[in-house]
Amino acid sequence: MQLTLAVTGTTKVSHLVLLQAPVIENNSTIYYQAPFMSTIDSVKVERMLKNLQQHICESLETFEPTARFESDVWQRSEGGGGNSRVMTGGDVIEKAGVLFSSIQGDSMPATATQRNSALAGRSYQAMGVSVVVHPLNPMVPTSHMNVRFFIADNGVDEPIWWFGGGFDLTPYYGFDEDAIHWHTTAHAACAQFGDDTYEHYKKWCDDYFYIKHRDEQRGIGGIFFDDLSSPDIETCASFIERVGQHFVLAYQPIVARRHELPYTQEQRDFQLYRRGRYVEFNLVYDRGTLFGLQSGGRTESILMSMPPLLRFDYNWTPSKGSPEEKLYSRYLVPRDWRNESLQG
Amino acid sequence: MQLTLAVTGTTKVSHLVLLQAPVIENNSTIYYQAPFMSTIDSVKVERMLKNLQQHICESLETFEPTARFESDVWQRSEGGGGNSRVMTGGDVIEKAGVLFSSIQGDSMPATATQRNSALAGRSYQAMGVSVVVHPLNPMVPTSHMNVRFFIADNGVDEPIWWFGGGFDLTPYYGFDEDAIHWHTTAHAACAQFGDDTYEHYKKWCDDYFYIKHRDEQRGIGGIFFDDLSSPDIETCASFIERVGQHFVLAYQPIVARRHELPYTQEQRDFQLYRRGRYVEFNLVYDRGTLFGLQSGGRTESILMSMPPLLRFDYNWTPSKGSPEEKLYSRYLVPRDWRNESLQG
Repeated sequence: MQLTLAVTGTTKVSHLVLLQAPVIENNSTIYYQAPFMSTIDSVKVERMLKNLQQHICESLETFEPTARFESDVWQRSEGGGGNSRVMTGGDVIEKAGVLFSSIQGDSMPATATQRNSALAGRSYQAMGVSVVVHPLNPMVPTSHMNVRFFIADNGVDEPIWWFGGGFDLTPYYGFDEDAIHWHTTAHAACAQFGDDTYEHYKKWCDDYFYIKHRDEQRGIGGIFFDDLSSPDIETCASFIERVGQHFVLAYQPIVARRHELPYTQEQRDFQLYRRGRYVEFNLVYDRGTLFGLQSGGRTESILMSMPPLLRFDYNWTPSKGSPEEKLYSRYLVPRDWRNESLQG
Repeated sequence: MQLTLAVTGTTKVSHLVLLQAPVIENNSTIYYQAPFMSTIDSVKVERMLKNLQQHICESLETFEPTARFESDVWQRSEGGGGNSRVMTGGDVIEKAGVLFSSIQGDSMPATATQRNSALAGRSYQAMGVSVVVHPLNPMVPTSHMNVRFFIADNGVDEPIWWFGGGFDLTPYYGFDEDAIHWHTTAHAACAQFGDDTYEHYKKWCDDYFYIKHRDEQRGIGGIFFDDLSSPDIETCASFIERVGQHFVLAYQPIVARRHELPYTQEQRDFQLYRRGRYVEFNLVYDRGTLFGLQSGGRTESILMSMPPLLRFDYNWTPSKGSPEEKLYSRYLVPRDWRNESLQG
């Protein structure tokens, strides 16, 4: 039985709320809720995130006759820990990682305080769920989702909290139908906040998942957001849950209608080649990955996003008029897929 | 016929020496020597580097009945260019890249001037040869070599110039004999500068090729150096040539005695897995790779170092007492291999 109770280093107790610990889940895994100096009840958010993790794992397991997610429950000496759930070698899913983590620290990392000086010197709690799915069949796109919650507290002022997240899709062979469905579902996830929100988050996603040294998008995008802290914590948490659920709604049907399509070794090789771009993006640009590696995060969890198998081919270019070329020209450029839907 | 004459943007001509251009090589490739504001005759260094490129390609082709290096001669709009020579699909060598490049620029990049403020605002010329060899057989180690030459000029003061370089080895299955030979040959390359130089460059190599987020060395090291500018340019250039030649002397015999060893699919898989570390190091830490990608260098040339095929396995660990575990415990830690030789 693994159990850690992390205590933050600060001694200010002006509005300390000792949250219950440990929390025993019905799957017999013991999570823990560290005492954290905040008036914000993060237990509710944590429970919602863990439910989301479970829901996503179950949705992916529906495609697999035998493969199942395995759990690695881990602790972090500085406070907190996580449950890394990974499934490999499935008939449909070559590798999928669905990670939950919840960590505490004595003072916000420099990368975070640079963005907002009000965060400097605050203790923090950060929790989230990260998902990357690498299917076997090159006709099925790779998908990614992340939702995260931060609280920064100094024991005196009001705690600062915010949510971030999003999901994006990386096809190897493009299907308009899939791209339209993906973005329509992303739009639906944002519906409560109005059309502008989807447009804003969609552009944010296109801007973020851009491989500068290739002048290519990583995929067809989706939504990406950060610093979400209005109108209130309940509304935001409910939106986050909705994002997670809509990720499943967006991805499930695409996997369902593509995973039995026949494919050739050449198409598989193209998938392996394009997976190299995923590695390039994650290791060169992705803020979460770089911050995690540089700040002593759990390497195996951070790098669970890496594809199981991939290739690099020097100076490869698709042949004129091929489906591979169409991936570049039609799918790896920002496109208003929802509007394609209205037109089509 | 491709030919570019790049002219630096400065108009100061106090000691301009117009160097000959183009230089026609006997293999019919046309290189070019851009006019560069310097009293330093970089043509000699450039010719030496190109000869080194040719020598290294020939040394690797000796293992191949049919595979041969192909050339991509490229130009850079900002000035200069290169010849990227890549061989793939060999019987012994799965992929090798041997690159020559020589580029000019109007002002030193920020990353370089941070290190030495005297460089700020100077125009520059940078040339070098980079080599990465990924053999097919997991018993044959991956090797890397780089030599480089910089001149920074402001048209008024003495030009600042320096050399850098080194070579290092990344085994998948360790052999003491190979490690001792590699380091003995590295020591011999430095002999003219005395024992201290090898010791210094050996430590520099161990410090540089360290994968922090894994707490592992990339391989068994070798030598690494930078800012070499004494006693004089002729001596340094001759040392650089010696480093390149000793790379061949160090690597050839190791390939020769390992490439016909039998191996299993499990050993091949371990090689593909460990190649992931190569990618992690190069994309997360390697200064040349990151600078190149971020400064708009030629992506395909920069990433020719990537392995042709690789895997990522979540949370994999070698079994107790296995040769794979021995790689970690004996070979991926800094070790005084020359002294092992004296002991053994």
